[in-house]
Amino acid sequence: MAGNTFGQIFRVTTWGESHGKALGVVIDGCPPGLDLSESDIQQDLDRRRPKSASTSTPRREPDRVEILSGTFEGKTTGTPISLIIYNEDAQSRAYEGIKDVFRPGHGDLTYQKKYGIRDYRGGGRASGRETAARVAAGAVASKILEREEIRVTAYTLELAGVRVAHVDLEAIDKNPFFAPDLEAAVLMEETIQEIKRSGDSAGGIVEVRVRGCPAGLGEPVFDKLDAELAKAVMSIGAVKAVEIGVGLGAARLRGSECNDEITPEGFATNRAGGILAGISNGDEIVVRAAVKPISSIEKEQRTVDIDMKPTTISVKGRHDVSAVPRIVPVCEAMVRLVLADHLLRQRTVAIPS
Amino acid sequence: MAGNTFGQIFRVTTWGESHGKALGVVIDGCPPGLDLSESDIQQDLDRRRPKSASTSTPRREPDRVEILSGTFEGKTTGTPISLIIYNEDAQSRAYEGIKDVFRPGHGDLTYQKKYGIRDYRGGGRASGRETAARVAAGAVASKILEREEIRVTAYTLELAGVRVAHVDLEAIDKNPFFAPDLEAAVLMEETIQEIKRSGDSAGGIVEVRVRGCPAGLGEPVFDKLDAELAKAVMSIGAVKAVEIGVGLGAARLRGSECNDEITPEGFATNRAGGILAGISNGDEIVVRAAVKPISSIEKEQRTVDIDMKPTTISVKGRHDVSAVPRIVPVCEAMVRLVLADHLLRQRTVAIPS
Amino acid sequence: MAGNTFGQIFRVTTWGESHGKALGVVIDGCPPGLDLSESDIQQDLDRRRPKSASTSTPRREPDRVEILSGTFEGKTTGTPISLIIYNEDAQSRAYEGIKDVFRPGHGDLTYQKKYGIRDYRGGGRASGRETAARVAAGAVASKILEREEIRVTAYTLELAGVRVAHVDLEAIDKNPFFAPDLEAAVLMEETIQEIKRSGDSAGGIVEVRVRGCPAGLGEPVFDKLDAELAKAVMSIGAVKAVEIGVGLGAARLRGSECNDEITPEGFATNRAGGILAGISNGDEIVVRAAVKPISSIEKEQRTVDIDMKPTTISVKGRHDVSAVPRIVPVCEAMVRLVLADHLLRQRTVAIPS
Amino acid sequence: MAGNTFGQIFRVTTWGESHGKALGVVIDGCPPGLDLSESDIQQDLDRRRPKSASTSTPRREPDRVEILSGTFEGKTTGTPISLIIYNEDAQSRAYEGIKDVFRPGHGDLTYQKKYGIRDYRGGGRASGRETAARVAAGAVASKILEREEIRVTAYTLELAGVRVAHVDLEAIDKNPFFAPDLEAAVLMEETIQEIKRSGDSAGGIVEVRVRGCPAGLGEPVFDKLDAELAKAVMSIGAVKAVEIGVGLGAARLRGSECNDEITPEGFATNRAGGILAGISNGDEIVVRAAVKPISSIEKEQRTVDIDMKPTTISVKGRHDVSAVPRIVPVCEAMVRLVLADHLLRQRTVAIPS
Repeated sequence: MAGNTFGQIFRVTTWGESHGKALGVVIDGCPPGLDLSESDIQQDLDRRRPKSASTSTPRREPDRVEILSGTFEGKTTGTPISLIIYNEDAQSRAYEGIKDVFRPGHGDLTYQKKYGIRDYRGGGRASGRETAARVAAGAVASKILEREEIRVTAYTLELAGVRVAHVDLEAIDKNPFFAPDLEAAVLMEETIQEIKRSGDSAGGIVEVRVRGCPAGLGEPVFDKLDAELAKAVMSIGAVKAVEIGVGLGAARLRGSECNDEITPEGFATNRAGGILAGISNGDEIVVRAAVKPISSIEKEQRTVDIDMKPTTISVKGRHDVSAVPRIVPVCEAMVRLVLADHLLRQRTVAIPS
Repeated sequence: MAGNTFGQIFRVTTWGESHGKALGVVIDGCPPGLDLSESDIQQDLDRRRPKSASTSTPRREPDRVEILSGTFEGKTTGTPISLIIYNEDAQSRAYEGIKDVFRPGHGDLTYQKKYGIRDYRGGGRASGRETAARVAAGAVASKILEREEIRVTAYTLELAGVRVAHVDLEAIDKNPFFAPDLEAAVLMEETIQEIKRSGDSAGGIVEVRVRGCPAGLGEPVFDKLDAELAKAVMSIGAVKAVEIGVGLGAARLRGSECNDEITPEGFATNRAGGILAGISNGDEIVVRAAVKPISSIEKEQRTVDIDMKPTTISVKGRHDVSAVPRIVPVCEAMVRLVLADHLLRQRTVAIPS
Repeated sequence: MAGNTFGQIFRVTTWGESHGKALGVVIDGCPPGLDLSESDIQQDLDRRRPKSASTSTPRREPDRVEILSGTFEGKTTGTPISLIIYNEDAQSRAYEGIKDVFRPGHGDLTYQKKYGIRDYRGGGRASGRETAARVAAGAVASKILEREEIRVTAYTLELAGVRVAHVDLEAIDKNPFFAPDLEAAVLMEETIQEIKRSGDSAGGIVEVRVRGCPAGLGEPVFDKLDAELAKAVMSIGAVKAVEIGVGLGAARLRGSECNDEITPEGFATNRAGGILAGISNGDEIVVRAAVKPISSIEKEQRTVDIDMKPTTISVKGRHDVSAVPRIVPVCEAMVRLVLADHLLRQRTVAIPS
Repeated sequence: MAGNTFGQIFRVTTWGESHGKALGVVIDGCPPGLDLSESDIQQDLDRRRPKSASTSTPRREPDRVEILSGTFEGKTTGTPISLIIYNEDAQSRAYEGIKDVFRPGHGDLTYQKKYGIRDYRGGGRASGRETAARVAAGAVASKILEREEIRVTAYTLELAGVRVAHVDLEAIDKNPFFAPDLEAAVLMEETIQEIKRSGDSAGGIVEVRVRGCPAGLGEPVFDKLDAELAKAVMSIGAVKAVEIGVGLGAARLRGSECNDEITPEGFATNRAGGILAGISNGDEIVVRAAVKPISSIEKEQRTVDIDMKPTTISVKGRHDVSAVPRIVPVCEAMVRLVLADHLLRQRTVAIPS
């Protein structure tokens, strides 16, 4: 039983391989009457494109999104919204090298074992390119969140060991790393360049903050808001850990240090990260994702071929040094999908008047 | 839209409040022909009961499980399995103290905001007691996993800052903390006693290991095995972070340090924690959960009452010092639910012969 | 993948075998704040009990329902509502006769083929007794419909070939057949007595009318209101056909005879049965179900035993002559479940304000 | 909560408006390793195209299907299969006439009431054109059924009051009505011509037979095979009634006439239509759908405009006289979707070996 659909009410189904004809998403359950144009979505897709020659491949991906259904005269109609992005320069490339060799850290081996067949070109469905469809869907979710004045912002908290010293949301779009600290961004650039020269790659941490989320979202006991966010973020390719609020640090605090005292003005602190008992408490929601380094590296590694014979691999070519900057808008998109879905879910929970 | 069902094929729906008449679970989708008796389930429930006077409340919870449907002559029949646990000593207690005051760190406030009404007795549905139904369901899932020789083992990796020095699976059931290191367990006991005297509480880390899991489980791109495990574990009350394999550490590794090289004998290392591109790779699966300290503490804290007037609270009585030991079997159960579900899901993916 | 859950938002999971310990239902997704007591549900369950010695078995079924969770101080809380009905006199009966023989018209053979095992006592899960849980759930759904002033009424349109001459809703509860025509009811009684004497059984037609349903319910293109009603009603044991509005008659009408003209005061006619393009149109909803005769008859029939050897069977004992009267409240319940679910579904479709 | 997805394991999501850019379907959960080409699907789509000038509009719909994802080197890969059909001549047409008037028998009014907005061009999502996506998905489902030698055949049992005298499956594709009786087809042609001249339209009955279906498919108690078939078929635009086996006739039979006796060679009769207690019994499955006349007729009818002012309408232009012939392949497709889904569902029910 496949798993390419996300959400219960605001339901998103993505499709498409890295080097197939196109990729896309069908959004079922978007309320009618919302303004929606291709340029709204294009904006978010453009943010996902690599901005820095140092972190990323120079590959040009136009990623032009087209709305095929679900809108009429610029407004959503309540019917399924189908979005498509054609893979324009896909066919020209050759991926014969990875056809018969399993790349360490990649899904080559597991896809082969699961399905007995795989589209090896560019990683097929396991490619990071799949996340373009998530970002496009997230842009539609934004339309719902904007009406409620819920703002979701993601940024790079740490890259290749360089951590930001402070969080200035204004700085995020002024550097190619989406770092909320321009000085840290300079250091990130240097570090990434160095790693690139060594033929290696780097990981980091993305943080997402949600301002303006009303109390009451999240569905105990299994579809709690933190559980859903954890799934959403962990479903992004390179993520290996998810934290809410104080996160891993909770393990070493005392109750008196971890509880957020409540005052008539609100919570005195926000160790909970805006979620109590799986339900948003009205405070800022804080989620963090640890991102592993890009698996494709030039440094030689041991592996096996399709006959399980030992060999080595050195992945050359236009590969990113770190997935972190590209994952920033994807994290934003996934958090938006969760919130849009839970806003609509909460409509069915509200006490009838 | 409520969220009390977990899983797609092996589908578990739990119900019941801490101080209602009973709690229970309905399991739909359990294959027929499996041996199942009440004592199989009772065993796991008993493991969940507090063993140490130092971490836990002396409250006696018999937690007798009864099978109401879905078995015939000791075997599952493929029809829904309904399990019930009566709340035997529930009615005698008074919880008037928390009726009108929101306890910091608890779901009192968020349940009230979400539903506009709440069963405040013992925390109602937000009580840790709800997890008894999960453990009961996990025991049924075990019946499926056993046939495939998949073994799920959870233990306390760290409690109140005391970390185990090594992992000896034999030690786990020989100490009240489910620690895989008997010396660490002694130190945990001392530390917990001290924290108890100070009227405070403590958190920790639970680790789960799965041996014998075949390659191929997990459903990209949203229901990846790691995404599903993250949701499953994060849905447990006090969990604030989930890690897979190297987890948060991935952020600071280089690609050459994080990739697991592949040899004809298998993976040279297991930083991936047994999951690649969201699909099990045949290696040991490793999941960790960071658990926050128990929110109910004797130390006085600021809070508000139901009219949002400031007040203070000091929670007295039979409260645990740490939820960690009780959460160990719950983590095991949740991981079992995910694996049983994905084993059955994979049956529908297999290439037709 | 099992199918014991009905509905998407108002989600009902039933469990229990005819001669197991108990049967019941868990309702997840009922909005909070609704008044709900056991006597509300009991009333509907009592309606389902046989009233006439001629149609039905004299078996006493107290069918006492108990609310185990999901309410607090007489109101729903938004958490799962668990209802249980104990099978009080179940154990005393012997069903050894049908253990090794497949009864014609029953699910004995198909359950055995599907699951490889079956609880043969009283038909197990395939027993009509399973519908008690549906009726209980329908009573909870009523609580939602009442607030919107939606009234669902089912009655016997035809029994054993005796068709009612007119529909007088006041008459329904004044005769054991739920016929809306007291004269027809007298004739039904006579006909049923005659069939009983001949050792045979009879079918009939149940009609359901829904008054007060607002326009706009139903979710194209698959979860259309008529499609959902068809599934709901066809899922009741003995139903072999479902009609909406003019139903089968539509096949022989011309467009000019079948279309309902629209006037400022509403539709001039109601051949559509209140549903256009799968969405309620504000008019009365009309659904009919054709019910086959009870399969258990005294007349001897050819069949095979569990080894596929030929034999004959004559089912003696306390069997109903027709399922129709018992199915009347079950049809009502199923239609209520669909409407409650779609009322809540429509809340998520409404244009955000 | 929208309803554009059908199936649980073999899950089909359709999208697209009649006069939008394109329409299509995403199939998630198709097993890997199946041969699949565009021409396989095109064949079924071509069958759906009108063949007779008398029943149907002369509008040319090329309906070229394109596979955008989910196959590699001619085989399915287990990833989502995205199919697209561009609406080639859509933009050129004007539908201003129906913009402000609700057509009797159509979804104009109900879509407007439900969503508060509608794409009125050609009926938008409520157009019969939507079923092209169903037929395309059904062609993919066929690939699964073929391996099990399950054959689904639909035909016109009755059209405009002309009923076939016998069923000759060979005749079906030799006449434009898909009638299994060539003499009846001649009479149908004459009758349809006559109705056309009178500016009216006609309904009929479609019958579907499934040969080779193994016993054991269907999931009690709600997702029974007959319940799922009823929903599938009733979700097709013009269908007003669904029957299984003896169908409506069951109401007037005695038990001794309705039960199918069992012999060592199989069932002596097939009044059940191949389904007992919601589970296939290995016999031929028989489903019938009553189809209402096309709502768009030239005969003048009373209606209201968007301001609820009275007016009249006479729909001129290229409208079909009966939807029956086009619905034949759609019924086939919907039955295939149900069977493919339940074949895969049954894989998870089978007793583990």
